[in-house]
Formats: sequence, C-alpha cells, structure tokens
Amino acid sequence: MRMVDIIQAKRDGLALTKEQIDFVITGYTRGDIPDYQMSALLMAIYFKDMTPVEIGYLTDAMLHSGDVLDLSAIPGIKVDKHSTGGVGDKISIPLAPLVAAAGAKNPMISGRGLGHTGGTLDKLEAIPGFDVDLSEADFINEVTQIGTAITSATGNLAPADKKIYALRDVTATVEAIPLISSSIMSKKLASGTDGLVLDVKTGNGAFMKTEARAAALAQALVRIGHLAGIKIIALITDMSQPLGYAIGNALEIAESIDILNNQGPADVRELTLTLGSYMLMQAELADDLSGARHILETRLADGSALAKFKEMIIAQDGDASVVDDPTKLPQAKHAIQVLSGQAGVVTGMDTDQLGIASMILGGGRQKKGDVVDPAVGLMLHKKIGDSVANGELLATIYAEEPQRQDVVDMVTGAIHIGDAASAPELIHQVIE
Amino acid sequence: MRMVDIIQAKRDGLALTKEQIDFVITGYTRGDIPDYQMSALLMAIYFKDMTPVEIGYLTDAMLHSGDVLDLSAIPGIKVDKHSTGGVGDKISIPLAPLVAAAGAKNPMISGRGLGHTGGTLDKLEAIPGFDVDLSEADFINEVTQIGTAITSATGNLAPADKKIYALRDVTATVEAIPLISSSIMSKKLASGTDGLVLDVKTGNGAFMKTEARAAALAQALVRIGHLAGIKIIALITDMSQPLGYAIGNALEIAESIDILNNQGPADVRELTLTLGSYMLMQAELADDLSGARHILETRLADGSALAKFKEMIIAQDGDASVVDDPTKLPQAKHAIQVLSGQAGVVTGMDTDQLGIASMILGGGRQKKGDVVDPAVGLMLHKKIGDSVANGELLATIYAEEPQRQDVVDMVTGAIHIGDAASAPELIHQVIE
Repeated sequence: MRMVDIIQAKRDGLALTKEQIDFVITGYTRGDIPDYQMSALLMAIYFKDMTPVEIGYLTDAMLHSGDVLDLSAIPGIKVDKHSTGGVGDKISIPLAPLVAAAGAKNPMISGRGLGHTGGTLDKLEAIPGFDVDLSEADFINEVTQIGTAITSATGNLAPADKKIYALRDVTATVEAIPLISSSIMSKKLASGTDGLVLDVKTGNGAFMKTEARAAALAQALVRIGHLAGIKIIALITDMSQPLGYAIGNALEIAESIDILNNQGPADVRELTLTLGSYMLMQAELADDLSGARHILETRLADGSALAKFKEMIIAQDGDASVVDDPTKLPQAKHAIQVLSGQAGVVTGMDTDQLGIASMILGGGRQKKGDVVDPAVGLMLHKKIGDSVANGELLATIYAEEPQRQDVVDMVTGAIHIGDAASAPELIHQVIE
Repeated sequence: MRMVDIIQAKRDGLALTKEQIDFVITGYTRGDIPDYQMSALLMAIYFKDMTPVEIGYLTDAMLHSGDVLDLSAIPGIKVDKHSTGGVGDKISIPLAPLVAAAGAKNPMISGRGLGHTGGTLDKLEAIPGFDVDLSEADFINEVTQIGTAITSATGNLAPADKKIYALRDVTATVEAIPLISSSIMSKKLASGTDGLVLDVKTGNGAFMKTEARAAALAQALVRIGHLAGIKIIALITDMSQPLGYAIGNALEIAESIDILNNQGPADVRELTLTLGSYMLMQAELADDLSGARHILETRLADGSALAKFKEMIIAQDGDASVVDDPTKLPQAKHAIQVLSGQAGVVTGMDTDQLGIASMILGGGRQKKGDVVDPAVGLMLHKKIGDSVANGELLATIYAEEPQRQDVVDMVTGAIHIGDAASAPELIHQVIE
C-alpha cells in the first residue's frame, strides 16, 4: 500500500477502505508517513469529505493509536459531557458535581483553552492547589468514591489525534467535519465512557459559525457514537453571546459556585440543567427529562451539589474554602469600567472578540505553552435584549494594569447597541 | 505574512497576490516553509485552481528562484521547442539539426525519461561518447557556431521547480494545470529563449488524456508566454499511439537518422516539419508556414540537416560515424517477434503500456537514478488503421534476454485488432 495512492483516491473522491485508513493512522503515528503526505491527505479530505463509514474507521484507528482507559472498575453506567467550546462556557464545572450529587458516575477528561475559548482545566486551576493531572488510578478512585473527577488526559490517549491536530493547525485543515468529529470522538471513546452528551455550539463565538455546520458536525458525532455502541445525544446551543456574565478563569469559578448555590445567570443554570438531565437519563437514573430535571433542581436547592463540589476540590488537593468565600480566589489588581456611549438595547455581540479580550488580558493562550493569569477577565453586565442607558455600565474589566484602553475599546466595539432585540433561544436543536 | 493564511486563502478560493506567491516560493526554496505546508497549498491549488495572473506570478517567482541563462551572446532570435512528453517522441533529435540547418538558433535544454515516457537526453546518450552535460559557455558557443545544442539544465535553473516537483510526485498533486504549466514555463523562460513552440500531447500515451485537458494546459502555457513577452504557440498533437515505429533509445536515434536522411515514418516527418515551420517563423526566417516548410524540406533533401546533426554530435564529443552506419549504435542481444493472433485492422493501442514495456526491458526509469539500457526497446510494424493478417509480425522486441514472454504479452495486449479504423489526425489544434 502506498500513501500517494491513498491521497490520490481521496483527491478523486473515492471512499477509503478500513485497511487504507488503518495504514494512514498507524503509519503516521509511528512516523513512517511524513507530515507532507499527511497534510496533502488532510486537504483532500477537506475538499472531498468522508462517508459516515470512513469517519467511523478514522475514529476507530485514532482511538486505538494509543491507550484506551478501562473504567470497568467504576460501578454503574459512566456518562460524560463534551462541549465544542465557546466564550464563558464553564458548564462542566457546576455540571460535574451536580450530576454526581444525583448519583451519576461522570469521569471527565478535559482540555485547556486556546485562542478565544477558555478551557475547563485552566478554570479549575484558579482554585489554589487544584490538581488536574490525576493518575489513572486516582481518577478511577475519585469517580468511584465521589461520582466525578475532572482531569487532563491520562497516559497516551489517542496520540494520532495530537499529532494530526498539530498539523491541521498549521495547514488550514482544521475546519473539516470528518477531522473535527474523529478528533473529538477518538479522545472521548478512548476515555471509556458509556454515555456522552454533546454540546455543539453555534454562533459567532463558536467554532461552527452557522447552525447548518453545527448540525452537520452534531450528526457526524452522533453517528460515530452509534457505530461505537455508546449512548449519545447532541444539543446545538447558542453561542451568539457568552454564556453567563463571567469570562476569565477565577471569575468563571465564582459564577459556577453561584450556580451550585442555586443562584447565578439563567442561561448557565438552564444549560447545566438541560445537559445534566440528558446525562441522568443515559445513566438510567431518570425516565424522562422532567423527572431528571426535578432531581437536579432538588440537588441544587438542598446544597448537595455544592457539597459535592467541595468533596471534588478536596479530592484533587484544592482549597475548598473558596466555595464558601469566593474572594479567596485570585483577584485582579484593577477593575476598569466599560460604560455605554449611547442608550438603547443590546442587539448583538462579537462573542469571539470578548473571548480574545480576556485572552489579551492574560486569561487565555495565544499559543500552546503560554502561561495563563487566573485572576483577569471580564464581567458583562448586559446581555442581548437588555436595555442600556447612556453612561450605564456594560462590563467590568479585571486587569493587572490600571489602564487597558485597548481592551476597553475592544469590549465597547464588541457590544452592539440598537433599537430592539430579544434574547436568543439557548437550545436550538436536539440531535440523536 | 503567514503561510497558514495563504493556504487558507487558496483553500477558500481566493486569488493569491504577487507578494503572497513570492513569499511562498522564496520561503520554500530557502527551506523556511516546510514541506507539509507546501503540500497542503499544492492540494488546495489542485482543487481551487489559479487565475492566469496568479499562474504568471507563480511562474515568475519560480523562474527567479535560481539562475537565468543569458543567451545575448548568441546573435539573432533564439527559438526552442518543448513537448509535454509521450511514447516514441524523438522529435527534438531530427528537429534541432533541421532548424539549425535552416539558419535558426535553437538552444535546447532537455530532460530525462521517467515512467512510460522517454527523455531526449537518454536517447542522445545512446550515441557513444555524446555529452549532454555542457557548461554554459560550451552551450552558448555551440549554439553560436552550429546553430543548436541539446544539453541538460546548466547551473541552478529554477530550483523551486525541482523541489516542488519532487513534492508533487509523492502527494498526488502532479495533475494540476497551474502547477504543470508554471513548472514547464519557469524552466523554459529561465533558459532564455525568445520563441517557443509547444507540443502538447493528448491521448492515452500522454500526460493529458483528454483533448479538453490538453487544450486547457496549452492555453495556460501560451498565456504565461505572452505575459513573459516571448513568442509562443502551442500545437495539440496526437498521442493515441506512439510516434513513429521505434520506442527505445538507440532505436529512436536510428529512426531520427532516417528522418534526417529524408526517409522514415510519415508521422515523425510530418510533426518535425510542422513544429520546425513554426520555429522558423518565430525566428523570422520565413513569412508563412508553406514557405517555412519548403525551406525545411529542402534541407532534408539536400543532406544539410543530416550534416548538421553530425556537426552537433562531434561538438558534443559523440561518435558521428553512427549517422552513416547506425549499426554502430548499441544493439540488444536478442530480437523477439510479436505475432498477431488474429486478422483485422489495428483499431487502437494502449500507448502508455508500450512505453512501460520498453521501460521494463531496461530502456526507461521506474524511479530517478535507475540506469538506462540504450539498446533495448520495441519496433512496431503496424500502426492504427493498418491491416494485419493472422500470424503477421506486429512488433519486434529488442531485449538482453532470449525470452521475455512478459513483454510479449504486454505488447500483444496493448495492440487492439478489430474490424475497421483509420489513422488518427496528427495535429489536433493550434493555440496561439
């Protein structure tokens, strides 16, 4: 088998066989196939797409390119959630302890932020001492004991994906659904979950800018899950504005604590409850959505979800006292007010620009390896549909410097004020 | 400027600017841009094509990636011919001395064979002692004194093309017209010619299998020539069967000597006269085709073209006595007859298979660096439209082994015999 023939077959629009796809992934992971042939194949896939069967083979080959976690020591059905990423998306943080408090087993392997999107691990590290690099044994033990744990990838999970992702990033082949979907699902399947609820974001703060693209990705993800024999469902949810008000690591932890305190922004609460309800149903802890939701609402109201979060922080060596006193979280030196220059209604946001503003303050990474400042970020005070008076506070910037006119200008420019608008629907579609 | 942005722009169908194309070619030639980004860009070009203006910029950047020959020391208008390659295409060998005998200056930089096509340099090396690696000074001197010289690329001509071609070969990006046309024209323009007659082959023995693809390539080539300010014309000619009867290095030299002796196969003679006529017009040695043809026919009839070939061989250290006694050319040990198993008319040939048959005998290269046997090859005895009796001789195989049943089978299978067919038109189109 020759790589050049496989590139040519895909270039000419043919479906690749399982043997061809295994040859590519095994050879590339080993280093037998050079980057320059892989990048040509990736670009051919970008243009010629892959069939669901090919995507299944690709995912399977990537999943088996390294270790596969064995979670059989954890009793019961393991369920997980994955978001394609957005601005202010801290849902995993209240969600994991909430579903654990409801009796689910939620082993969550998460990632770091890059570009305009934040990462769950970076947010958790805003809690002093919190360890996101658990050993496999500690991870399994914590999920068994507490019901959840959030960690970075343990061991050598889907190394083919790591290598291919790095190449896609520099060859303009990131935005291809076969490549995105196999990348997500190879890691999630290697992490050994039985059920997966997908939160596919759409809108100007998401990776998939249009609902059609988001739906195509969701369908590809769900098909891979079905082929792999796991329980899977995908929600397409709104990312035309940030989730909640907080953007930035410690700020988002504080907002997550609000949610677990049965308070906090309505959109974050709603999405946490909805995603969690599907997880409870996959875990066979509820028969229907309303039953599941009722369980979760009770766990928020009775403080057991908040208590579970403390347990989780303690198990991962963090300072759980931040839950009762969020001022113990890292605090930025300066708060800078962003005021509206006009009256009206917030009609839209350049969501990715708000993510980039937080990144520029030091809260995110422009490139891998950049150090993240947990304290900085933004608090929005208005969302789409809200009325604004001239001179009213739109947002607060939390910065290490007293003046950040550049960020003030970015935030001002990113919040559009006009005549009328209503809040966008949060849940666009459910695909199963 | 970032290479990934340039890849993305082309991927999204945008036209690249001169600055972007210069950045790519300069950076890639220097080694600043890695192969894996270049191959992704090449695949994007394969799918999204380039405008004539972009192809002009690309050719110009490749042309200036290395040395450009200065032929100004040669008096008069310099004219050249380039063929996209086929089976039995020995036209350069009779053509160069013929147009030189008519007074043209023809500095010809030629190549070697690869795959099913032969190369002019390999054929000339079948003449004992013939030197195809002239210094630039010797090349210029020979063209000035004799009127022609055929050599390999002198110096560092279009190094970007060498590097890109090697990459295209292993990434299934050979068959893209912007890449083919800029590759051909960057080398030809770097060789400093004032006029160029292009022989774009079409048919199953050619690189461009369909006439539409050949015409598209011819148009791209002619446009580049116009942009560069040279005289240029392209003929689309038939490659649905080999040119002439001889396939193989020494065999093709012998057939070329026949042409220069005012004999030889009608198609080789006709194509040599036609291409030569356009060259004489570019050299302003004739006003029209019929005038040019008359000059060339006279040079064939009076022996001056043959004498010019001897001069050229002597100037390049070859044994010119082969011209008078072609049996002094390398001879294969064995002649194996291929007989027809049926009666009828030759209706078609798998032309590339006949080229591969010669390659397998040792007459060509499967990969760069393979050593070529000058003696081996095929002589056809029938062409399309010829009648064949059962048991009649179709071809003779010249081999170093007494038995080559594999090649006999290949040749038999490649010559189709049916009810009726007529000889294909030799010249399909003229594009200027």
